[in-house]
This record gives sequence, structure tokens and C-alpha cells, in this order.
Amino acid sequence: MQPVLLDKAENIARTNEMLERAAKSEVDVLVLPELANSGYAFQSGLEVRLVAEEVPNSEFCQILKKWSLNDRMVIAGICEAYETSIYNSAVVFANGELRTIYRKVNLFNQEVEWFEPGRKEPPVVEFNNHHYGIMICFDWAFPEIARILALKDAQVILHPANLVLPYCQNAMITRCIENHIFAVTANRIGKERGLHFSGNSQIVSPKGEILCRLGENEVSIVYHDIDLEEADNKMITKRNHVLRDRTPELYERLVKRR
Amino acid sequence: MQPVLLDKAENIARTNEMLERAAKSEVDVLVLPELANSGYAFQSGLEVRLVAEEVPNSEFCQILKKWSLNDRMVIAGICEAYETSIYNSAVVFANGELRTIYRKVNLFNQEVEWFEPGRKEPPVVEFNNHHYGIMICFDWAFPEIARILALKDAQVILHPANLVLPYCQNAMITRCIENHIFAVTANRIGKERGLHFSGNSQIVSPKGEILCRLGENEVSIVYHDIDLEEADNKMITKRNHVLRDRTPELYERLVKRR
Repeated sequence: MQPVLLDKAENIARTNEMLERAAKSEVDVLVLPELANSGYAFQSGLEVRLVAEEVPNSEFCQILKKWSLNDRMVIAGICEAYETSIYNSAVVFANGELRTIYRKVNLFNQEVEWFEPGRKEPPVVEFNNHHYGIMICFDWAFPEIARILALKDAQVILHPANLVLPYCQNAMITRCIENHIFAVTANRIGKERGLHFSGNSQIVSPKGEILCRLGENEVSIVYHDIDLEEADNKMITKRNHVLRDRTPELYERLVKRR
Repeated sequence: MQPVLLDKAENIARTNEMLERAAKSEVDVLVLPELANSGYAFQSGLEVRLVAEEVPNSEFCQILKKWSLNDRMVIAGICEAYETSIYNSAVVFANGELRTIYRKVNLFNQEVEWFEPGRKEPPVVEFNNHHYGIMICFDWAFPEIARILALKDAQVILHPANLVLPYCQNAMITRCIENHIFAVTANRIGKERGLHFSGNSQIVSPKGEILCRLGENEVSIVYHDIDLEEADNKMITKRNHVLRDRTPELYERLVKRR
């Protein structure tokens, strides 16, 4: 979709339209982009505060919550106000309940001026006996994040994004292969104050196949039936398990502060 | 290049030819494929023992060592005999000296039948004030390995390979971007006992550009002038450093045995 910078009412209208289209297509798990309630290219802390919303009581959250009734799950990026802080978060609603808030760990470029970084391991949500890992946009650049989600038994990564660098869509293929996991990247389109977002929302399989992909400038719901159990078989060859073959005894350097 | 299974003499001849061609092209750092002295598709432990060689005294090592005189460095994959074990190793010679032996940590498929796995962190070698990280073939599938090399200040990954899966050449682009590092993958070509190797040896920049790439079935020396200092600037944006932005305090799960 294409959120509109600083226009909460319009973003609710556009989100509602996506929810309706998804419902018509019988989508049961829906991923919306990062900062879907607010737009992206802020220029002041005041702007950010004007559009930041509390979870789960804001109107934006309530339309997500309502949609999630009827055995559905939805994740959306939200500019979140919590106590005195603002976060770049993703909220997950399933069956009419708030299931998790993930606060983006890896803030991109100017985001560090507007948001507090999340300080918790990214979460995995259970829904209808399947396991959904959550990360946001620039988290893609840190293989540790997707790896942690896989080690927490996520079968698919739900990945709201507002991508401006050209690397992520291809990198997600590597994330899927190295973790034998699905990934759903929902990336916004359009321009804001000179920033161009790259669209190309996609669903990638554990073998790195692009199962479906939207255009660079396309507002639409793209969906695919996937069998999440495919992600449970971690054998990349008869003898190689992408997680059990790891050698954590050699990885101490990964957890040291430099 | 295309090593010949079980034919040590022929592999020395073919390696010599590559060394001569590289010298003529004024290559100063040369990467040869995995198991360049032995071929790959073994069918018995006896076969492996017949071609395994001791480092650094074997004739294969000696031709590498000799080539490395005159301010050059060479890395080659070798079927290595050490005490009572056999390893899938890479040897590095620079200026006429053995600089390191890396024993492949992540054995692929049937390799587990022939080789002991390496049990040490992959090494970084200094040569003319630059830092060269070493990994072999299937190590590509474990983002932890390239990450460790980057954390050890490698500016480039030297990567001998005998690839049969189709994923690696693309995945190395992600490895380069996520670590802002160069990578040189030297992959053999040809077929052995039904296994097809994918060639496409390549040099990739820290921005994920393919600086040069050989064909799928091409025996050749491909080379490129690269400025290794480019890899020292780890800023992917004005505010994002691909290594310092890591959050090791969230990565404890990466070093736990499951």
C-alpha cells in the first residue's frame, strides 16, 4: 500500500480498503507495511508525536483488531506512542486479540532521530498451530535476526517494510534458504520528501523461490497458499540440517561487544 | 579450474597451468577451488586416503609455496592428511611461507563420510597490510561464518568452492552487503560421477556488485583490481554501521546448543 505522510485519517481509510480487499480474497494472514498509520519521512519530533498512537486503543489498531475476528491474523507497522517514548513497531492481532508488539531493533538512518530502538529479541507468535516470526524492514540486514526467529521455530517471517535501499528483496531469498523458512515482505510504494520506496512486496519459499511479487509501484493484495510445514524440514541435503549443523561453540565472537 | 578425480599428477599439472596464467596476468592474490589436488566425488575412504596429502610437504603444496614467492599469496583447497585424520582444508601460502590451514567447518552431504570437520574459528590472514578471511564452499550457508570473518576485520573473503547447489553465488552477494566486505569465490567446473559443479567463479564488492564472473563451464583466471580499504567503511547509511549496529545483547540464542 501507500500510506500518506502525517495523515492518520487517510491512512485508516487506505488500511480499511486493504483489509476489505484481503477479506474478499479470503486471506487469513495479512501483512501490511511498516508505519502504515503514519507514513515515513518525518522531519521533526513534533511530526512524529502528532501521528504516534497507543496500542491497542487507537482507531488504527481497532480496525486491525476487528478484521482479525473470524479466525484471521494481521500484522501492521505502526508509529507507536508508549509512555514517553515513540517506537517503530509492528502490532499483531489475531482472533480479535492483540498478540504481540514488536519494536524495531535495527533503526535505519534518520529513524534514530525519531524512535527509541526496541531492546527485546524479536517475537514468534502462534496462530492456528503455526509459528510466525516478526521483524521490520532494516532488520533484514542483520542475519542474526532472521536466524533467531528460525531458532525460535518460526516457520515464516512476517516482514513489514518501507525499503529505500535496493538490496532487501534479494537478501530475503538468502534469509529463506539459510534458515529454510518462508518470508513475507510487505513493502510500501511511493515517494515522500524525495525518498523513494521500492515496493516489490513478495512471498519467498524456504528454497528461495519467489512465490509471488508485486510491482514496484503497485498497490494491491498479493497472496499465495503456502504449506508452513514445509519450513519444518530443515534438511538442505540428506545429511545437512540448516540449524543443527550450526557450530555455536565457534560463535562466541557473535555475542561479544567489540 | 577443473580438477580430475583421484589424479594427483594431473591436478598438479592443471594447478601449475593456472599458476602460470595468473603470474602472466600479474595476479598478486590467487584463489583456487576446493579440493584442487584431489577432485571431489569420492566413493570410499580408501580413495580419499590415496589422494590426501600432508601440508606443507606435498608436491601440490610446494608448487603453491613456490608461486607465492615474489610477494604473492595463493589459497587452494586440498584434501589434507593430518595425523590419523583427513580434512577438507584450504592452505594459504604467502611470500614462500605457509600462512594458515583452515579445515572446513561445515561439511556438505557425503563429505561427512570422508572428512573430519574443522573445529576452529575460521582464520584471517594478514598480507601486505590487508586482511583476508578464509572459508570453504558450504560455509556460505552459515551467515555466522562470514560474520565472524568480518568481526575479525577481514576485508575480503577468499572462498574456494566445489558448488553443486544453485544458491551460493547469489547468497554471496548478501554476505558481502551484510558485512560490507569483498568476496572471491573460486568454484570448480565439470562433472564427476553424476555431480555437476556450477562454476561461475566471481568477485563481489561490499555493495554486492559482481565485479567479474566466469562462465558456468569456463576454465580461466578472472581477476579484478580491488581497493580493499573500501571494505573498512562499514557505513551502509550515514548513521548505520553494519557491525557496530549489531545488538549482541539480544543474540544469546545464537550460541546456545539447542
